[in-house]
Amino acid sequence: MGELDKFYKTISNLQCMIPKDHPRYESLMIRERLIEGYKMGVTALQGLIAHGRGEMFDYVLGEKSHDFALKAEKVAVALMLLSKRPVISVNGNTAVLVPKEISELSRLLNAPLEVNVFHFSKERVDRIRKYLEKFGAEILANCDAELKGLSHARRIVDRRGIYVADTVLVPLEDGDRCEILKKHGKKVIAIDLNPLSRTAMKADITIVDNIVRAIPNMIKFAKELRDASREELEEIVNDYNNKETLRLALETIRDNLTKIAEGKLREII
Amino acid sequence: MGELDKFYKTISNLQCMIPKDHPRYESLMIRERLIEGYKMGVTALQGLIAHGRGEMFDYVLGEKSHDFALKAEKVAVALMLLSKRPVISVNGNTAVLVPKEISELSRLLNAPLEVNVFHFSKERVDRIRKYLEKFGAEILANCDAELKGLSHARRIVDRRGIYVADTVLVPLEDGDRCEILKKHGKKVIAIDLNPLSRTAMKADITIVDNIVRAIPNMIKFAKELRDASREELEEIVNDYNNKETLRLALETIRDNLTKIAEGKLREII
Repeated sequence: MGELDKFYKTISNLQCMIPKDHPRYESLMIRERLIEGYKMGVTALQGLIAHGRGEMFDYVLGEKSHDFALKAEKVAVALMLLSKRPVISVNGNTAVLVPKEISELSRLLNAPLEVNVFHFSKERVDRIRKYLEKFGAEILANCDAELKGLSHARRIVDRRGIYVADTVLVPLEDGDRCEILKKHGKKVIAIDLNPLSRTAMKADITIVDNIVRAIPNMIKFAKELRDASREELEEIVNDYNNKETLRLALETIRDNLTKIAEGKLREII
Repeated sequence: MGELDKFYKTISNLQCMIPKDHPRYESLMIRERLIEGYKMGVTALQGLIAHGRGEMFDYVLGEKSHDFALKAEKVAVALMLLSKRPVISVNGNTAVLVPKEISELSRLLNAPLEVNVFHFSKERVDRIRKYLEKFGAEILANCDAELKGLSHARRIVDRRGIYVADTVLVPLEDGDRCEILKKHGKKVIAIDLNPLSRTAMKADITIVDNIVRAIPNMIKFAKELRDASREELEEIVNDYNNKETLRLALETIRDNLTKIAEGKLREII
């Protein structure tokens, strides 16, 4: 091996380590987790791009759970507890980002996890199922029923899960599935950092928060509310206005963007 | 093969086709191009995530080249024409998104392309070089010099290129390289959809535009300006204020976001 080759090899190895003092360290570590997920066959390549979009929204949201998000998370938990057959839909990114947490939430809410992906192959679905099973949750992944009205693979569901569910939690949703779930008479709870997406706009409850914060928050609310009466839960749900959440999220993004921009512009005077 | 297996196979094949009437068709096709690039070993996995971030900014910019972008593109071309040793730095995403266009711009500006990547391996650099060579440009990829002051692999440059350049065009830049190039006395032109990034803030000229529109625009300006006198070119460059560009870009994003948000909220009343 020549000197130059050795040098190249050192560089290639070195760069894998992200310095802890990097201003975007946490965000970069989450990226690395998704990349690991891709290498395991759990995350889709398109999922990496989708994550990038979310990252940017999180950045302009200040990377924190705002009051409107906490409120939506609490209401979502109350609605899941009130539901007869709540299901949590899990795709590749969700499985990689919060495997332990989503399994704990599933147990607390008595809502099974169902693997449901846009970039479908039975092998991929089985890999996600196997990966999640390590964390001890009940996983539905039979892919033996079809949601009418959807052309892509997300219409393939489990006969015991989304197919018969009354409420579905869909973290990191893409496009038109929310609408179809609604047409099939289901309540939809979305977790989406982009308050402008079709999913965010159409869901019954939209949680505009990063999934790595949203699920732990929901676990807390689930512990707090699981002994509450139906009346208390109903009051929480009936009090809620999702349009207000969307408006607050959009205003927060706009105001934060203005604030960040002004700060940055001052820096370079 | 059982019935269910056949069904799974049909779904897996079908989903690869994005319907032309999808509201995000063009954007999704660009994603597919990057994914092809990854499969060729040209795009890095991290490049896919970075693309997602840019996508979101393009969305709130209205996916068009605004006047502030066109102006920056024209000034950038004038500066490149005035420079003694202009170089165009190319990473994996740039190579995949605009291979033909960046090669044409390189010829028009008499500025060689230099392969320079964050996720470095000599093999990857060579693959990018070979891929770009098909489009007929001069490619520097010797990786035989070092830019002092940078810890990651982007410090590895070509002795004939960025190392001795007076002006460097860095499309889709990441992090701190812009600062180091400036410290080494070089003028930096950045193409970055995020006007808040460190690169955007520190470049001499910041083009806040999608690279798939920016490079074709720059080709037009290069054809228009290549017979201009030094005086004319200098006037174009001296008239320019990059802080004004950044302010306009940020204001445009903020105003568009408000407009989009209001429209969307009206829809769901």
